[in-house]
Order: sequence, then C-alpha cells, then structure tokens
Amino acid sequence: MNVRLEPSPVRGFRFAGVSAGLRNEPGRLDLGVIAADSPVAAAGVFTTNRVKAAPVLIAQERIKAGRLQAIATNSGSANCFTGKAGLKLAHDSAQALADELGCDPHLVVPCSTGVIGRMYDLERYRTGIRAAVAALSTDGFEHYARAIMTTDTHAKMVSTTLRLGGAIVTIAGCAKGAGMVEPKMATMLAYLLTDASIRPPALRRSLAQLLPSSFNAITVDGDMSTNDTLIVMASGAAGNKTLDASGIAKFERALSEVAATLARELVRDGEGATKLVTVEVRGARTVAEAERVARQIANSPLVKTAFFGCDPNFGRIAMAIGKAGVPIALDRLEVALAGIKIASRGALHVEALDAAATKMKEAEFGLTVDLKAGKAKAQIMTCDFSYGYVKINAEYTT
Amino acid sequence: MNVRLEPSPVRGFRFAGVSAGLRNEPGRLDLGVIAADSPVAAAGVFTTNRVKAAPVLIAQERIKAGRLQAIATNSGSANCFTGKAGLKLAHDSAQALADELGCDPHLVVPCSTGVIGRMYDLERYRTGIRAAVAALSTDGFEHYARAIMTTDTHAKMVSTTLRLGGAIVTIAGCAKGAGMVEPKMATMLAYLLTDASIRPPALRRSLAQLLPSSFNAITVDGDMSTNDTLIVMASGAAGNKTLDASGIAKFERALSEVAATLARELVRDGEGATKLVTVEVRGARTVAEAERVARQIANSPLVKTAFFGCDPNFGRIAMAIGKAGVPIALDRLEVALAGIKIASRGALHVEALDAAATKMKEAEFGLTVDLKAGKAKAQIMTCDFSYGYVKINAEYTT
Repeated sequence: MNVRLEPSPVRGFRFAGVSAGLRNEPGRLDLGVIAADSPVAAAGVFTTNRVKAAPVLIAQERIKAGRLQAIATNSGSANCFTGKAGLKLAHDSAQALADELGCDPHLVVPCSTGVIGRMYDLERYRTGIRAAVAALSTDGFEHYARAIMTTDTHAKMVSTTLRLGGAIVTIAGCAKGAGMVEPKMATMLAYLLTDASIRPPALRRSLAQLLPSSFNAITVDGDMSTNDTLIVMASGAAGNKTLDASGIAKFERALSEVAATLARELVRDGEGATKLVTVEVRGARTVAEAERVARQIANSPLVKTAFFGCDPNFGRIAMAIGKAGVPIALDRLEVALAGIKIASRGALHVEALDAAATKMKEAEFGLTVDLKAGKAKAQIMTCDFSYGYVKINAEYTT
Repeated sequence: MNVRLEPSPVRGFRFAGVSAGLRNEPGRLDLGVIAADSPVAAAGVFTTNRVKAAPVLIAQERIKAGRLQAIATNSGSANCFTGKAGLKLAHDSAQALADELGCDPHLVVPCSTGVIGRMYDLERYRTGIRAAVAALSTDGFEHYARAIMTTDTHAKMVSTTLRLGGAIVTIAGCAKGAGMVEPKMATMLAYLLTDASIRPPALRRSLAQLLPSSFNAITVDGDMSTNDTLIVMASGAAGNKTLDASGIAKFERALSEVAATLARELVRDGEGATKLVTVEVRGARTVAEAERVARQIANSPLVKTAFFGCDPNFGRIAMAIGKAGVPIALDRLEVALAGIKIASRGALHVEALDAAATKMKEAEFGLTVDLKAGKAKAQIMTCDFSYGYVKINAEYTT
C-alpha cells in the first residue's frame, strides 16, 4: 500500500474552505466544511486535557451515536474557556451548518482551533457557512485542510487506495499542528475519511487501534491541547461487501498507515522544527516503561536543543533516560544516534561522535535506545527545539 | 532574620577555589575545596535520577555515617556514565584530598559537574588539590562558589546569622545551576555550612524539612540532573548549648530561609533566563494536586515562551492547568498574573490583559492560580524560556 502526501476525493464527501473573516488576515481561509451526502458511520477521540473547548464537549456527545453528516471547523479562535456563551456559540455554529445542509443538527460537529479564551463573530461565521456550503465540491479537500491551519506552515494531507471487499476503497486524511502537541488518547485536529462501508462499532475499534502508532506517538512540545479532536467518517460509497474479520484487519492496517503518515507530517511541521527525530526505546520490560523513557527523551528541552545544534550529546540522552524512573542497567545500555552507535556496555564511544554529528545534519534521523532488560519497545516521533519555536511563541499570541 | 546575598566566613571551615586546568579555559577556576578543621556533623540528599554520576554514588554512601571533613568539587566534567573507570577516578580524587589534609578518606566526598560521559585528568586534579589545600582560608568561600560554576553567569552565595543556644551562629550556602534543573528530592550542587553545634540526626531532619520550600520547589527546564547533590555541614565552632526542640525549630527556619534564597538565585540565573516567576497554586484539594498543577505550568514551553514575550497568554496557562489531570471547575477558576486578575468565574478579563502585559516586563513577578476546590497550596519558582536558552544549549556541548 502506498500512502501519498496528497489530497484525494473520497466518494460520498464534499469539502470546502472559505475566508469568513474570523481572523484578522484578509483572504486567509479560516472556515472549513466536510459534508457527507447523507448520514455516515463515524467515530472520534478527543483531548484528555481537563480543560476542554466548547466544541469538544459537543462533539464528544454527538459522536457517541456512531453517525455524522458534517463537520464545520474554524481557525483563529479555540472557543475554549468561554463559559456558557462559548457553548452556545458552538451550538449555534453547528446549527448554522445543519440549516444550510437541511440536516439534523445532531449529525453536525463543530471544531475550533486558535487562541484560547476567545470567541468568534457568529454573524461572520454564518455568512461563511453559507459561502462554504455553496462552494462544497468533491475536489475541495485541500481548501478544507488549509482553512484549519494555525501556525502550520503548510496543509497536511495524505491519501491511499486499497482493494477491500471486492471494491476499490479510498482513505484520505488531513490534520493541523503545529504547537501544543503532545496528544494523549487523542490528537490535534485530524480527520480521516473513507468511502469504505464499515459499521460504527468496527470503525470505532479501527480508530482505537491506530492511536498508539500514530497520534499518540508524537510530540512537538509536550503541551497537550484543549481542542484535540480526531474524527473518522466512512461513507460506504465504495460499495464494498460487508467486511469479514480479515477485511476489517486490512482496513485497520491501511487506516493506521494513513494516520501514522499524517502524525509524522504534524511533527515535521512542528513549530520551529528543523528536524524530525524518531526516538525508539527497545529492550524494555514493558511497553509502558519503554514509552515512559521514550517520552522523557522526546520532550527534554536539553535533548531537543542538542538535536537542533547537531550535537550528539549523549549526556543529555542519559539524563533523560534516567529521569523516567525506570530501573536502568548502565553497563548494558546501548544508544545509537542517526544510525551510529555512540554508547554500549556502559561506555561512550567518543570516536563515533563526529560521525554522528555529521549524520545529525540531515532533516530526519533516529535515536535508538536499547535498555537490554526485556523485549518491549515503543516509538515516539519528535522534533528539535529551535530559535524558531521561541520566536513563534514569544512574539505572537498563539 | 536577614538573609544576605553575600558570602560569609563560617567558623570551623576553610575554603579554596583554584584553576587546575580541568576545563579548556586557562585561568578559569574549576576545582574547589571545603575543609572542616576536624570531622563535623553532615547530611546530604542526592538526585533521584536513575542515572547517577560516580561521585554521587560515593557521596551517598559516605554521608550515611553523619560525619564529614571535606568536599572536593570539580566543574567541566560530570564523571557520569563513565563506568568503573569513573568510579575509580572519583575514589582517587577523594583520596587525593584526604592525603593532603591527612584525614580519613571516608570523611571526604567528591562532587563533579559538567559534561556527562567525560572524565577529567587525575594528575591535573591532584596538582590542583595540592594548590587548593595550600590556599585554604576562612575567606575563600567565594573562590569555592566560583570554581563549581558551569553555565552559571555568576556565583550564588547567601549567608545569615542568628542567635541560637546562647551563641551567635552563622549559616552560609552556595550553589550552582543553571540548566538541567528540576530537582526532585534533591537539587543541583548546593552546600550549606554552619558553625552551629547540632547532632547528625537533627541535622538530617533539618535538611529534609527545607526541601519542599526550596530546592524541590524550583525548575529551569524540567530536566533532572544526574549529579544533583545538596550537602549540609555543621562544625559546632559557634559553641552553642545543646539545642532543645525550640532551638532546633529556630535553626530549621533559618536553614530553610537560606536554602530558599539560594534556590531562588538558581532560578534567577537559569540558562537564558530573563525573568523569575513564582507560580503559586492555591485552593487545591491536596498539596500533591497543587504541586502537580504548578509543575505543569512551570515547565510548559508554551507558558515559558509567553513569559519571555511578556504575553499574558491565559490560554496556555489554562492548557497547562488542564493537562495536570486534576479535576478543574472552570467556572470557579481564578488566575492572577503579575498581580493583575486576568480570569475569574469562568471568564477571561480581556480588559486587564494590557496591564498584565506591562507588569510582565518586570524581571520578577508571580502567577497565582486559585482552583477554589480546597485549602491546599504549592509554589514552584521558574524562569522564562528565551532565545538564550536555545543558544546556550544548541551551540555548545554543556
């Protein structure tokens, strides 16, 4: 299966992205709509942050039924910590789209991303919704993906096709980052769409299984958003036969690969990021311990600034490993950076550091830690910590 | 009691700091010695990082006896992840000082700080120890404090005097930061010295009680060092009477205030820091929950870059509060930044943000979060996250 970094039409869905004037940037797309031709199977996961935005509260409720018809997403305002007025705004926003589409408002989910504590203008929003519904098209995926961007430098879209249940099925996805990214049991805003025919419970399980290897395996800055939302919708327009266990397994593999590719693109476009680093911890006693060590490395400001500086700084990696609280046998620990073994059996390979530093100049490399204590492993994708991150987050309110 | 940001002689102790050539910076002080005139009461706490430096392993053992005579501290190399050779080096280093002083090596503790994974030259160290012992003087405190610096911009020293048990007692302390600072149950390198007469068990308890309000209440970057060491030594040279319960309580208050002042200075001189921010979380159900919320705020890169940018970014504060996993009643939450209330009862006070932004230009301010859920509180001192932090940690191996 070949996952492409490109949008694709998905039968049964239409898309739009318009400039509704919700941000102070004339012409910038800031309101996107995804509309299915009729109610379709859907599932979602959301931020575990205790502070949740108003649209998240509504979306969580509505998606429980396993069916949705449309999503409206604005950027520029997160509609979070906005109290009852914010909750009403989110309700009215979904209602506006339901009215235009002539569908049940319980089948419509609102999503917001942007500055926390701010609402947006409802009249502008409604005007924007009318324009978006008028502009809905099967080719509008990229406009939608652009409308949901905040500090992202580009729209992130992936797609693939596979043969499933006697039909050709498409899966496409888009997502936005780029800061406040360390999803736990959820993600930033991300949308996966397919024309496969699959029942809501199976779709829900497919969504749950892809998390550990995709959106729950990334970090930009260790900060968890209040608006994290991942929604998958399946229109059934591909006309495949009812999926048996092996069909569902195949679908899950494809959905996972699409999600993992999208998650990777989120990290690559992390705020100020110049490098994508895959941290793999192996040889742990349990997956939870492997993940704990990997997250400590992936979120350490000292490790991430060393990535930025192309500095094979073993000491900081060792520090991060040690602070995970997992028992470590230093005399067995093995560490490879950008493919170069820099430490093993308790000794640092000083002579290997120059080669590692050279390899670290590449835009993408791995850091592999083998604890030699068991067979469990975990991977976390992270990025470096640069002047750009400080600039984006100190000079602007984001 | 008046804690001064100045060194002070402490009866019963002599100090030295010399340039032993352990770093590649000619003339820079890099080896310090503290020597008591005879064995004295001592206690210590150390990093809880699972990766511990060789000198930490030795110091932890030796301090158990409750008596020490001398400490030798080098900067430039942490002597961590250096295996058996590193352990031998730390042993030989302490032995070198014991030989020069003519005392039992078990009464000597080695400390190291600097780059992890590197050792230092033992011959240069020995030559340095000879020079340091020759230079020992009651006025040498500042030389010692300078010799232990790494990325610190200045030596951090505090002192105070109090009347105790019929005598005038001095307490003095010094410490070094400035990155890899989020001690837990320990601290960076810090030394507290007093001429009070106090027995080792009482001294040990005095040390334990000061941690929550000083070294365990600070963070620079959320990264925990492999070499964190805090040692307190009491010479008894002040000649006070045996302390009763109220005398010990008075001593503990003074020691705590000295420690808290020193901890504060560590944060103020954090890598790249331009601001010192005291994060206080009140109204929590338990101290543990208050501390969890305070740490999430104090370590969030998004909150810390907003501090640097003088941006009263309530959204990031709300995000950090929410990710602590503590139940939050948003409609009761109250947040004051730099003395200005910016949110209460579920609403952001937009009109107050300009005033808060202006106040945030000061070098020191507070952030107070009232959860309105109980009576427990916790304080964490932190600094901002600036271009300077990235520069220090991306351009140099530290």
